[in-house]
Amino acid sequence: MSVLVLTEAELRACVGFDQDCLDAIEDAFTWLCEGKVEMPPVMHIEVAEHRGDVDIKSACVRGLDHLAVKVASGFFDNPKLGLPSGGAMVVVLSARTGFCESVMLDNAYLTDLRTGLAGAVAARHLAPGKVRTVGVLGSGAQARYQVQALRLVRDFERVLVSARDAGRTGAYVAEMSEALALPVRAANPEELVRESDLVITTTPARAPIVEASWLHPGMHITAMGSDLPGKQELDPEILRRADRVVCDSRSQCRAMGELQHAVSLLDGDGAPTELGEVTSGVAPGRQSPEEITVCDLTGTGVQDTAIACLALSRARARGAGVSIDS
Amino acid sequence: MSVLVLTEAELRACVGFDQDCLDAIEDAFTWLCEGKVEMPPVMHIEVAEHRGDVDIKSACVRGLDHLAVKVASGFFDNPKLGLPSGGAMVVVLSARTGFCESVMLDNAYLTDLRTGLAGAVAARHLAPGKVRTVGVLGSGAQARYQVQALRLVRDFERVLVSARDAGRTGAYVAEMSEALALPVRAANPEELVRESDLVITTTPARAPIVEASWLHPGMHITAMGSDLPGKQELDPEILRRADRVVCDSRSQCRAMGELQHAVSLLDGDGAPTELGEVTSGVAPGRQSPEEITVCDLTGTGVQDTAIACLALSRARARGAGVSIDS
Repeated sequence: MSVLVLTEAELRACVGFDQDCLDAIEDAFTWLCEGKVEMPPVMHIEVAEHRGDVDIKSACVRGLDHLAVKVASGFFDNPKLGLPSGGAMVVVLSARTGFCESVMLDNAYLTDLRTGLAGAVAARHLAPGKVRTVGVLGSGAQARYQVQALRLVRDFERVLVSARDAGRTGAYVAEMSEALALPVRAANPEELVRESDLVITTTPARAPIVEASWLHPGMHITAMGSDLPGKQELDPEILRRADRVVCDSRSQCRAMGELQHAVSLLDGDGAPTELGEVTSGVAPGRQSPEEITVCDLTGTGVQDTAIACLALSRARARGAGVSIDS
Repeated sequence: MSVLVLTEAELRACVGFDQDCLDAIEDAFTWLCEGKVEMPPVMHIEVAEHRGDVDIKSACVRGLDHLAVKVASGFFDNPKLGLPSGGAMVVVLSARTGFCESVMLDNAYLTDLRTGLAGAVAARHLAPGKVRTVGVLGSGAQARYQVQALRLVRDFERVLVSARDAGRTGAYVAEMSEALALPVRAANPEELVRESDLVITTTPARAPIVEASWLHPGMHITAMGSDLPGKQELDPEILRRADRVVCDSRSQCRAMGELQHAVSLLDGDGAPTELGEVTSGVAPGRQSPEEITVCDLTGTGVQDTAIACLALSRARARGAGVSIDS
């Protein structure tokens, strides 16, 4: 057997913020709701001794030639060692034989990309048609990826950012104003939410950082920081007051995401729509300029499979990577 | 980050049927029962379209520097393509940072090895002190690995083998009589069980192939073929009649292994002992020459972590593999 090993640099040259990548992630949500996806619950391993955890996501899509197994980690003390807290890599298997065909040593790039693109898919269908101001809570990788991906679907004019660490906020402002060639400035959370047409929360918060009283008609919120049980960015009242709540996976959102703190919403009438129901046309997207919409994204294995399949096909076309005969 | 990629040939040169490997697997069972292991349930993905399934096992052990994530597959139609039905590879993460440190493209060698060694650990503690005849049901990889590993703990004199396919049985007899330098001959299942001091079942059967009426005092059975829900090799009456039933993981055996077909035994008084309780000395091994003992092995993630840690340490000491900067 021959396994194609690809590095982060090689993968960055293959997939990024382009329309086909966006469409691949949109397709992933659609497949999920069309019943084409076998997606097991996330496997979670606590490494309490070193304040870390490992999460494994996977999904098999009927009709695709490959499936991905994504191994992601978050280790709280890594920054003390001068290392990023998060890491990830992807194993790609043949869906026909089960054999490993590629190992993607992407250092979480594919995760960052597919997560950013998922935010853009949500915005494409749920954000107001005209977004002038984008507000971003957090100043890490996703604060960047979400805004970069958003450019594929909305022409916004300025970005507000709010984060606890002033140094990191300053770095974000400097870097992103140059990358976007747009005004980017720091704001406090309330000001940010009140002034933004589209708010994206990207923090590891474990208590609400956005209050319901700050909402205003016509706004959209994408909350994507809460990807583990116990994490929370939004006052649960926001989910109750919103005109529409959409999530990536109702079953996954029982245990993580914002909906874990408002599980009764998952059981009642008018339960949240899944994003794939919107992308597939089964459910409508934004229905009026006045609606308040929220999208709760926890990250699904089918996104990993979708981006990995596209990356592998492009890498092979380019002859990228090192092939190892095992 | 730098990731050490190791192939099957390199891994075969590092770990095999030796005392340290056996001890590593015995330690794994001990750790499990000492509460040192965080081991999530197996992640299972059906690939119905291609009659395959993917199983992911992992475990983190307090005090070890690494943890393994093992991705294994079984695809029923592979033999029609001239390919083995089973495949597997292992990702090794640092337990300190979560980063991927090694990718082991072992084509299931490590799984075969740790599974064979687990059988030897069971036999060390549960088989009669003197084993003259070993009976093996099945003629696949584990029919070989179990017997090879057994040599580390018992000096047997002959092997009986029983399998449905006469050609495969003949190949087994020819290959193993040479490898072991011992008499190996084919037998029918009843004759095999009645004549053997130690019986090992290694088949993918989904209905009992060993009957309770064939049992005899003093024998030990290790059943290791049933590693998925629905598989079964032993008449459940065997578990009820045996003087001692030991299993690798009570929680896992609710869903797979032989005990899935006799779950009431897991709940009653005298519930099966875990193998780690025996290896750690919390529970006794074989207590008399007359006892009938059964060990139900389903394969645990902690075995994968144990063998992968040892393989990585030996590979590094030898300078084996290709290091890829990701």
